[in-house]
Amino acid sequence: MSEISTGMTRRNLLAMVGIAAGASAMYSAMAGMGYAGASDYKGPLKLEGDPKGTSVLILGAGLAGMTAAYELRNAGYKVQVLEYREKAGGRCWTLRGGDVFTELGGFKQEVKFAEGNYLNPGPWRIPSDHYAVLDYCKRFGVKLEPFIQQNYNAYLHNTNAFGGKPQRFKEIQADYRGQISELLAKAVDQKKLDELVTEEDAALLIESLKKYGVLNDKMEYVKSDDVSGYRGWEKDPGGGVDSAGVPSDIISLSDILKGRLWNDLITGESIDHQAAIFQPIGGMDMIAQGFEKEVKDLITYNVKVIKIEGGENGVTATYVDSNGGTEEKTAKADYCICTIPFSVLGQIDHNFSSDMTAAIEDVYYASSVKVGLEFKRRFWEQDEHIYGGISYTNTPITLISYPSTNFFSDGPGVLLAAYSWGAASYQFNAVPAEERIEKALEFGAEIHPQYREEFSNGVGVGWHRVPWTLGCYGVWRDMDAHYDNACKMDQRTLMAGEHISHLPAWQEGAILSALDAIQRLHKHVTGA
Amino acid sequence: MSEISTGMTRRNLLAMVGIAAGASAMYSAMAGMGYAGASDYKGPLKLEGDPKGTSVLILGAGLAGMTAAYELRNAGYKVQVLEYREKAGGRCWTLRGGDVFTELGGFKQEVKFAEGNYLNPGPWRIPSDHYAVLDYCKRFGVKLEPFIQQNYNAYLHNTNAFGGKPQRFKEIQADYRGQISELLAKAVDQKKLDELVTEEDAALLIESLKKYGVLNDKMEYVKSDDVSGYRGWEKDPGGGVDSAGVPSDIISLSDILKGRLWNDLITGESIDHQAAIFQPIGGMDMIAQGFEKEVKDLITYNVKVIKIEGGENGVTATYVDSNGGTEEKTAKADYCICTIPFSVLGQIDHNFSSDMTAAIEDVYYASSVKVGLEFKRRFWEQDEHIYGGISYTNTPITLISYPSTNFFSDGPGVLLAAYSWGAASYQFNAVPAEERIEKALEFGAEIHPQYREEFSNGVGVGWHRVPWTLGCYGVWRDMDAHYDNACKMDQRTLMAGEHISHLPAWQEGAILSALDAIQRLHKHVTGA
Repeated sequence: MSEISTGMTRRNLLAMVGIAAGASAMYSAMAGMGYAGASDYKGPLKLEGDPKGTSVLILGAGLAGMTAAYELRNAGYKVQVLEYREKAGGRCWTLRGGDVFTELGGFKQEVKFAEGNYLNPGPWRIPSDHYAVLDYCKRFGVKLEPFIQQNYNAYLHNTNAFGGKPQRFKEIQADYRGQISELLAKAVDQKKLDELVTEEDAALLIESLKKYGVLNDKMEYVKSDDVSGYRGWEKDPGGGVDSAGVPSDIISLSDILKGRLWNDLITGESIDHQAAIFQPIGGMDMIAQGFEKEVKDLITYNVKVIKIEGGENGVTATYVDSNGGTEEKTAKADYCICTIPFSVLGQIDHNFSSDMTAAIEDVYYASSVKVGLEFKRRFWEQDEHIYGGISYTNTPITLISYPSTNFFSDGPGVLLAAYSWGAASYQFNAVPAEERIEKALEFGAEIHPQYREEFSNGVGVGWHRVPWTLGCYGVWRDMDAHYDNACKMDQRTLMAGEHISHLPAWQEGAILSALDAIQRLHKHVTGA
Repeated sequence: MSEISTGMTRRNLLAMVGIAAGASAMYSAMAGMGYAGASDYKGPLKLEGDPKGTSVLILGAGLAGMTAAYELRNAGYKVQVLEYREKAGGRCWTLRGGDVFTELGGFKQEVKFAEGNYLNPGPWRIPSDHYAVLDYCKRFGVKLEPFIQQNYNAYLHNTNAFGGKPQRFKEIQADYRGQISELLAKAVDQKKLDELVTEEDAALLIESLKKYGVLNDKMEYVKSDDVSGYRGWEKDPGGGVDSAGVPSDIISLSDILKGRLWNDLITGESIDHQAAIFQPIGGMDMIAQGFEKEVKDLITYNVKVIKIEGGENGVTATYVDSNGGTEEKTAKADYCICTIPFSVLGQIDHNFSSDMTAAIEDVYYASSVKVGLEFKRRFWEQDEHIYGGISYTNTPITLISYPSTNFFSDGPGVLLAAYSWGAASYQFNAVPAEERIEKALEFGAEIHPQYREEFSNGVGVGWHRVPWTLGCYGVWRDMDAHYDNACKMDQRTLMAGEHISHLPAWQEGAILSALDAIQRLHKHVTGA
């Protein structure tokens, strides 16, 4: 982590949170600091004015590159796209049975998932306020289904609390809220907060806390039918004889506090996780395929850009075959939209200005790992009644996410069995790829004892080892100093991608950055 | 409401809550008091032992009756079912374009919804812990999809607050939680709660409240990037130049308290509403159809039972054609499972014991109304980015629920535009059926100004006017005195249905009551 020794910016703070407090804290901090959020998309782009044959070279056929290609061609530009891989989409990527993935260092994984199962190594959710992604999905016919983020029946797990036994989210959620409501209601009732709350508000505050916390008339959160109606029952209500529900015991606030299980109570409520959110039916790369269908004829696949040279007469990219060819070819255009991640771009010859070069060097790429495990049956549904949603843990897997599709099916199912950032992810990245599966099994079994018995196969993607990004998403060391420079046209080139946005790591950020770049390009070209 | 003048039981209290505080309070109180909850279903029924040709007459082909029919035939019983309507399902009922519904009094509504749209006048959601319903759906091939209960982008609306302008759930939710967390954190920090919180817990409590409430280091909930990451932004983050998010103003606790918008903050978090929950694809009666496919050959349709007479030799039901016939026929069997709602059963000749008669008379049927409005387009999605979920209001419509299916589609969509109980529902029941639509439009337009412009057609079902139930679900005036008697075999008859359960108004209660009844019957018959 020598990258983060250059001063205490917000992003540095994030990196340090990641190291000190584990991946879950990192993620929550990201959301809290506004690195995740809604979108300012204003609807389909209209570029008016004739570009008069102006040509644009687009580097990278991820969502940013394909957005630019699609919209620029529609506006009358001549467009060519160079892509390193054999297919489009970039991090909008889905692994299915039969896929082969070779990471940096040469380790090759063959995915063995059953038909219909998949892992999205990159983005896996579409917030309902990511309007650009949603709009392109609609225009390109990509079918969406709800993604279940929050499941009250999923678990909160801390190896140091409750003897390591996972607790149901609904119980911790109701009990924490109830007991803090009780404390505040009593404090207000005993007039201990008279400096902070007016007399008029005090009565309403107590009334509201009774409702919000499910308190009784004495302002107590206690074992009762009422409370069991939120946290769950000891014995569930039924039909016929002797079928009344039996209330459940509550967990004391002190135990919840010491167990730190409050840590993920609002993780699912950040603006980008708030229900309803969506996923493409069949895997995230259905979006990539939707775009690719539109612009496939513009893309040259399997080429590795080794040099970018811009000047008064245009931009020339030199490239070789990405599968090891040495023959150099060139592509030339009046302008360039470069969506190559800065982690890769920094290793390519270029003649960008010193400001742009400094911007490229400022961005490091977050460490992140995802492990998908396929199990012979959906034991989380069949045994534990968990349908979609996420369990959180303090172990290095950070979370387990249950599939939000094909509910109640009998066949094998794939869990996102680890999704870690920062320090936690190093435990996966540092071991040989085949051991990532074992690690995910080891930690996951602490939550689901069925793991070993039901395990079938798995795949693990460490983003630092993905050759075409060398990391998960761009993190600015000093955004204030460099971001604006990165947005400027430099040697007739504009940068685009999630790293050139305030929605980093999100597909929405990639698309919006491309839309912003091409609007500026178009204005530059047409003077409109 | 003269029915409720017989003493202060829990259910009476509920009825009074309904009258005094509006339908929303009624509903919340129901959930809180345990009248809604998980299920004690233990998996598929195994009835061992030979019934040796014993015959059973089942009255009513709703889910309780069909469950009994299906399981009893499987166990070797001779089964006959009598059903009032022309089809099975009872309150598991869906109205689609082309359907005609005639209510008590003769008013006939022809449903004009477009292909694929529907309204479920009765049950509309399947909680994830209603194991029996889920299990039968799986066994009978009924496909389910997630039902979005909670949508942070939906509205909370009170005509007396914020100038009648609806507020986004996410804003009120984040701001209320944040400001009560701030108050409690400050009180603890100022050592005002030393009698209630140990010193050890105090530090952890403050730390947890900072996380839970999104407080800054001074324990304040203030306008910031952090807070906007939960309540939403003034200007959303975007891509490229000038794309940083602009934080939004917060709403003061005092305004939230006075506006009573805290009232529905946890409505979607009761045990039976907790994500993930489900609905059948295509309408709730897909479940009815799933059952009916299995037992159709056992059902005699269009017959109205006018007399039930049990004795030592069996049970005889006398019936006529339900479409106005006078010719009396009889059906006879060794035993009877009666699922006729007590509201109707009380008007049928019978020779049940005085205890059973008293039980039948003890149950009244809740008033409830549902209005479905079809609009020319899904303006709630297209204009307001609300995908599924529920808005709550203090007007008599109580709520607006947005469809959890066919998201992003271009065609017309149907809103559940009113779902009221108790006092609020009388405003709909008391007017001619055609005026219910107008009322739903009038109140709904206060939340969605697009209503008048986009309205196409609608249908309104007042449950008190549904001839075969005369109300929505059974409510015991004095459950303690009568419920056990209602469960007892009386004149060789066992009662079943949602009213014979601790999950009233739920399909799960109906199925579980039937399973309980036939297990007791089987034990009685076989001595096993």
